Amino acid sequence: MVRSLRLPRYLEIINNMNKPSSKTDTRITLAHGNGGRFMRELIEEYFVKHLHNSDLDVALDAAPISPPSGQLMMTTDGFTVKPLEFPGGNIGSLAIHGTVNDLAVSGATPLYLTLNAFIEEGLEFTTLERLIKSMAEAATEAGVKIVAGDTKIVPRGEGSGVYFATTGIGVGNNNCNLGIDKICKGDQIIVSGSVGDHGAAVMLAREEFGLRGDLKSDAATVFPLTQMATKLPGLRFMRDPTRGGIATVCHELAKATQMNISLKERHIPVNDAVSSVCEILGYDPLYLACEGRVVAIISPDDSSALLELWRQHPLGKQASIVGQFIKDTDSSKVIIETELGGQRIIHELEDEPLPRIC
Amino acid sequence: MVRSLRLPRYLEIINNMNKPSSKTDTRITLAHGNGGRFMRELIEEYFVKHLHNSDLDVALDAAPISPPSGQLMMTTDGFTVKPLEFPGGNIGSLAIHGTVNDLAVSGATPLYLTLNAFIEEGLEFTTLERLIKSMAEAATEAGVKIVAGDTKIVPRGEGSGVYFATTGIGVGNNNCNLGIDKICKGDQIIVSGSVGDHGAAVMLAREEFGLRGDLKSDAATVFPLTQMATKLPGLRFMRDPTRGGIATVCHELAKATQMNISLKERHIPVNDAVSSVCEILGYDPLYLACEGRVVAIISPDDSSALLELWRQHPLGKQASIVGQFIKDTDSSKVIIETELGGQRIIHELEDEPLPRIC
Repeated sequence: MVRSLRLPRYLEIINNMNKPSSKTDTRITLAHGNGGRFMRELIEEYFVKHLHNSDLDVALDAAPISPPSGQLMMTTDGFTVKPLEFPGGNIGSLAIHGTVNDLAVSGATPLYLTLNAFIEEGLEFTTLERLIKSMAEAATEAGVKIVAGDTKIVPRGEGSGVYFATTGIGVGNNNCNLGIDKICKGDQIIVSGSVGDHGAAVMLAREEFGLRGDLKSDAATVFPLTQMATKLPGLRFMRDPTRGGIATVCHELAKATQMNISLKERHIPVNDAVSSVCEILGYDPLYLACEGRVVAIISPDDSSALLELWRQHPLGKQASIVGQFIKDTDSSKVIIETELGGQRIIHELEDEPLPRIC
Repeated sequence: MVRSLRLPRYLEIINNMNKPSSKTDTRITLAHGNGGRFMRELIEEYFVKHLHNSDLDVALDAAPISPPSGQLMMTTDGFTVKPLEFPGGNIGSLAIHGTVNDLAVSGATPLYLTLNAFIEEGLEFTTLERLIKSMAEAATEAGVKIVAGDTKIVPRGEGSGVYFATTGIGVGNNNCNLGIDKICKGDQIIVSGSVGDHGAAVMLAREEFGLRGDLKSDAATVFPLTQMATKLPGLRFMRDPTRGGIATVCHELAKATQMNISLKERHIPVNDAVSSVCEILGYDPLYLACEGRVVAIISPDDSSALLELWRQHPLGKQASIVGQFIKDTDSSKVIIETELGGQRIIHELEDEPLPRIC
């Protein structure tokens, strides 16, 4: 039980290099991750300041939560995007919307979130604050509380500014029983809005293609839309078409149901700006990520009702029935009827035809 | 709604660079993060293979969970460590123990976890598999189920191999009411084992100091220990001394209770190998992270009983009463009585005297 108190000279030098010299420092340092005073101040003056709510107590190792009765649902998502900020959102709002939306499309009411931040040494405090503010706004909009969090500081060069991970708890409606196994032949596929906006907006924001445009990410909480949908008895399943876009959602569903999916190209809403970008760069918007859209599978009896409901909501103005499930001997294919009247198979995404945007 | 199907030549070249050429590829590529087939295979063949359980269904956006009645607790933690593997554990087992322990010290029974993985392009599959296997073992040991997960692949040079974040749900014992506000003057401080082993083991594993030794991290689930402690009515509060070590825990408690803490250096268990490393490098083991220890605050009436219980468990053999809360006019200080009989103040960790090890 002998221990040393000596602090050799070389360590002193290293310490001074890492040490935030005063409150006026504008960037994150490694010392903000060491568990001591700087970390406490970072958490209090940035995270708690904006994200505080009655259930957030950073002095606790674990937060008590008291969801109402019903089926509890749990989900998690990680977020990495370049650039950190883009028209229509930033990685902060995205980190809230993404997890809220995973709960929402499961038919649940999102309630509680936890937040992990991996912050790169050198990130500007002003940038971090903008991200956290957007996060707070998105959480308020979605009606969720952030109840616990953790920050890690990673050395300069790692971490790409910041990565977030959020985990959510929601409570399901006991009368709403959704599942891929509920999907029947003839069921219709509705998308709540235009596809590919998020993916295209992030690509443009990178400016590596030398393109500019007024494209905006569709990032938003879809809970108002899913809440409407779960009231309809014919609703079978919902998903938010993020990584891999609606093409990937359709693939997963065709594979899981062993049915074919027939899509009509002219019914799939794609904004003109997205079409133009895809035209120039050779991307297919069906594979581009959305961050504020829902794909709903619904019985033909209820599809018009859902379309009607969604179109009355600002987020669902461009909602459209884009296809249906069909039974065929040669199953699990996604077939699209092109605008010229031909047919082509939508293949599963294999390699990396898209810039990594989420 | 016009979209292009052309794939310009330069994109084709880029795609082929990123594309895993066959199943025999030994490293993670960016294509494993795109939402398509390679991602699905990565998840199925590595994560699901080892972490599968009755509540894990990767086809769902959110997992239904059904905890027993009681106060639900939620916590989250992020993990970054260099090297990824060290004597006594790796970042995989650490990611499970860390979150399980945060629930355990809150007096809860850990039940469900979610997992985020930020994996660096170029990570060897064999390394990833070892981490996931350790994770599976740690989860089984702690009796928790991983119910949801998410993977993101970050470009080579970012991400330091892998970062994990885990979020946990546990259920509290309704009869056990712990809190910093329950701590009284005279309450005793017990640590469940030697301090600083994890921090020292990770430092040695880096080999950047040219030192070698048989030090082993203490990383473990502390749930068996906290379960014993919560049966004692005199238990006030528990915490696991991770980042910042027991010095930081004592600081937080002194600050929150506005009492002084008096520690006895000769009662604080420090393994010889840890003492030697600290002696050479000039670190103080009180600030080094533990990953399998508990600091319990307990009334003097029950402290001997807890010591007895813990010492009978393999994880608690070195348990020791290390100090107590005292009331003084000049409050919120942590004072240590040295082995030579003097007194010194333990200061709050300010800068970065320690290598970042968690």
